Amino acid sequence: MTTELEHLAARLREFARAREWERFHTPKNLAMALAGEVGELVAEFQWLTAEESGNPDPDTLARMRTELGDVTLYLVRLADVLGVDLMAAAHAKIDDNERRYDADLYRGSARKAPPSPRGT
Amino acid sequence: MTTELEHLAARLREFARAREWERFHTPKNLAMALAGEVGELVAEFQWLTAEESGNPDPDTLARMRTELGDVTLYLVRLADVLGVDLMAAAHAKIDDNERRYDADLYRGSARKAPPSPRGT
Amino acid sequence: MTTELEHLAARLREFARAREWERFHTPKNLAMALAGEVGELVAEFQWLTAEESGNPDPDTLARMRTELGDVTLYLVRLADVLGVDLMAAAHAKIDDNERRYDADLYRGSARKAPPSPRGT
Amino acid sequence: MTTELEHLAARLREFARAREWERFHTPKNLAMALAGEVGELVAEFQWLTAEESGNPDPDTLARMRTELGDVTLYLVRLADVLGVDLMAAAHAKIDDNERRYDADLYRGSARKAPPSPRGT
Repeated sequence: MTTELEHLAARLREFARAREWERFHTPKNLAMALAGEVGELVAEFQWLTAEESGNPDPDTLARMRTELGDVTLYLVRLADVLGVDLMAAAHAKIDDNERRYDADLYRGSARKAPPSPRGT
Repeated sequence: MTTELEHLAARLREFARAREWERFHTPKNLAMALAGEVGELVAEFQWLTAEESGNPDPDTLARMRTELGDVTLYLVRLADVLGVDLMAAAHAKIDDNERRYDADLYRGSARKAPPSPRGT
Repeated sequence: MTTELEHLAARLREFARAREWERFHTPKNLAMALAGEVGELVAEFQWLTAEESGNPDPDTLARMRTELGDVTLYLVRLADVLGVDLMAAAHAKIDDNERRYDADLYRGSARKAPPSPRGT
Repeated sequence: MTTELEHLAARLREFARAREWERFHTPKNLAMALAGEVGELVAEFQWLTAEESGNPDPDTLARMRTELGDVTLYLVRLADVLGVDLMAAAHAKIDDNERRYDADLYRGSARKAPPSPRGT
């Protein structure tokens, strides 16, 4: 059975092949393209308050959705050319986080914020 | 049926709930966390040549895999709190790109590079 | 007279030369390194409220200062290898912004936020 | 004597004041705006080879210059609202790097690349 991410990766592979763009799609270039798209996504949120960011108006939400789509495309394409299984990598990372941030220890503690990703 | 992305989103929802971290997980904050993780991912590629980036040594590939996992976690969590279907958003974006970049027109043309994401 | 930015650029040039790192310092690689450092800077702010971000505790402020230093190093080095005068580029951009965002028009208007950088 | 960076910071302060945009210019928001602009800058380099990135055509270089200007504006504005002296922070960081990466040790060594910024 083909999963939804495999299906998307296959569609992107064919998209690049049909345009002979594979040579541009080195992992290095795709990582940059991903960073560029995340920059566009972040820009949608930059002047919103925390509250506004959770209740975007329809036009803003539509732009966020478009940018989320772009980010997903480059993330899936990058993982595909590197041969990385994104779902396995993501679940392995939550497994780690569950061990590292014990729920009882971190809940209701004096810590005011989740740990920063530094050192992850 | 639950898809793999829905399953991951549910696991992240429960992870945040168990630690009472939902109040930190505003879309604005999650977009920043995503940008931070993409920065760590990009850093893995910054001094590699194009060729090296396609043939990373096992340690480097393991770090890339870990960072790809982190990026996936925040992307899926951000889409979940915004109520955006990532797969639908991604396929809608490829549909657009297929219309915009006609394969026959862009293949073998004088254009030396795929279009930049500016204006997308 | 040497300006402070020219002085910093000269110091970075010599730092790279002494280690024979010039071949790594292509504009492409330096742009990635800049993105990586900005990712680390953003991570310092991700879980802070707007208010907290304006009143960081001394340890947090020290880390922000370090990351701001890193970002400055790569920005100045990138501009130097490209032959771009950062101060001239910055002032040209404010000139543009002053024309585009007329103070009387944008002040006290219904607009709730400054224009997004999209399209700039 | 006013340095060139102090002069730029003062001009940006007045720009924000005249439009009553100070309340949008929290450090958190400015860090996001900086990340967004760096995303646009990176996008200019993403499909270029290392060689091409060092020899951009005039139009590409003009766009790079514009994006470098934008990045500089937000970096200087962010440092100003945080009360951080960018030049002092940058020189402190090179001092560190000179201690950490001894020129004789790192030159001509088997290391193929400068140290990644992880852990910095």
